[in-house]
Amino acid sequence: MNETIKKQLNHRTIRSFKDQPLKKEELELLIDVARNGPTSNFQQQYSIISITDPAIKQALTNIGGQDYIANNGHLFLFVVDQNRNHQICKAQGVETNYSGYTEKFIQGFSDAMIAAQNIVVAASSMGIGSVYLGSILNDVDQIVELLNLPQYVYPVVGLALGYPNQEPQIKPKLPRNVIHMENTYQVLSDPLTTLKDYDNKVNQYYDLRNSNQRTDFFTKQILDKIGNTKPKRITNIASIKKQGFMVEDK
Amino acid sequence: MNETIKKQLNHRTIRSFKDQPLKKEELELLIDVARNGPTSNFQQQYSIISITDPAIKQALTNIGGQDYIANNGHLFLFVVDQNRNHQICKAQGVETNYSGYTEKFIQGFSDAMIAAQNIVVAASSMGIGSVYLGSILNDVDQIVELLNLPQYVYPVVGLALGYPNQEPQIKPKLPRNVIHMENTYQVLSDPLTTLKDYDNKVNQYYDLRNSNQRTDFFTKQILDKIGNTKPKRITNIASIKKQGFMVEDK
Repeated sequence: MNETIKKQLNHRTIRSFKDQPLKKEELELLIDVARNGPTSNFQQQYSIISITDPAIKQALTNIGGQDYIANNGHLFLFVVDQNRNHQICKAQGVETNYSGYTEKFIQGFSDAMIAAQNIVVAASSMGIGSVYLGSILNDVDQIVELLNLPQYVYPVVGLALGYPNQEPQIKPKLPRNVIHMENTYQVLSDPLTTLKDYDNKVNQYYDLRNSNQRTDFFTKQILDKIGNTKPKRITNIASIKKQGFMVEDK
Repeated sequence: MNETIKKQLNHRTIRSFKDQPLKKEELELLIDVARNGPTSNFQQQYSIISITDPAIKQALTNIGGQDYIANNGHLFLFVVDQNRNHQICKAQGVETNYSGYTEKFIQGFSDAMIAAQNIVVAASSMGIGSVYLGSILNDVDQIVELLNLPQYVYPVVGLALGYPNQEPQIKPKLPRNVIHMENTYQVLSDPLTTLKDYDNKVNQYYDLRNSNQRTDFFTKQILDKIGNTKPKRITNIASIKKQGFMVEDK
């Protein structure tokens, strides 16, 4: 047990920030933490874009449908970046479509998420809160246009950071023996019984976003979110291909 | 600056472990750190599988072609897991193919990577080293069979952990102004000039794996790995679809 782990065990997503912008040195330190993380095959297939232009921030807010995107925190966007390495090859006289293979998309996606989570942990150690914004993927084509993303670049996730202006409860997570298995995948049997205690814990949790209303059972939330709601980002495969990826499928 | 960030800035991948297995309590703590990370839309769409069976470990070593997979460290596999939530819906009388949409694959992939990197950072704070093993994706279909992965589950990355038996140099990373941009994507112009200093730094770095040989310039490595080498995991899209994902494409 140490300070790093204590902070990780007590992680809470922060959706409201104080009116205190992050300093330039803080941002540079966070980017350096990201840069120094591991990357797939030492190819560094990701980039980080800071969104500081209020008009772009507002456009992302509209895409994500989450007011707090435009709030006073700092906004990072993490992208799969195969364009940089493609340029490096091109400058040496070699141009292929290899940068667009699914393998490269997946490696870049992994690199981007490692960089993002590294920043989340580092920020937390500095007293800075964060919220991931997957909602930016609601309209990838518009993001591509707004940020001028070229071929072989694809948005992975947004991350807003700032000094916490709220102190949410810690959300109860699925039990260890449900998340973790040994050697063989264990299909969850009898979910409603197995997760009964967990459901009750989630039901006790007061979600700040819902003005202190009790939250639904976890199993009920999943039914509503996954069983009864069709995924909305059905154009994502088309957008991925439009950016030049998954070429071996063509 | 604090201990968490110091460790993150000094991250090195460890590929050789002492003959000192991780204790049960250490592993449980690491899994708890993973569990307490953020997940997409609070849906916890990932699972962690510990590979302890020597026969499976050996099979993964053969797939990855990296001897150190079978070494004495602990081996985690992180997977996209939409099967669990699918079972939760099914138990409540709702069965759809929504779990197989690309959106769910991407959310699960993000969750899995957040869990993995959370463990990397926590382990490092405990003096435990780690190495990501993307190489397990060389043969996804075999992994599926070995670990009995059902529909809506897909392997993301392996992670081997253990007490370091080596002290590699810190690898020089791409400069901040290359990885980080503001508002608009900046295509890397004149790569060989822009990265000249960085190339020289990489060239100074002695890679322990190559018995103290100098490493190539970064731009040369990228040319060899990306420009002149066709990606080998060309069956990954088919494997993703075989696991029930990307259904809106069908």
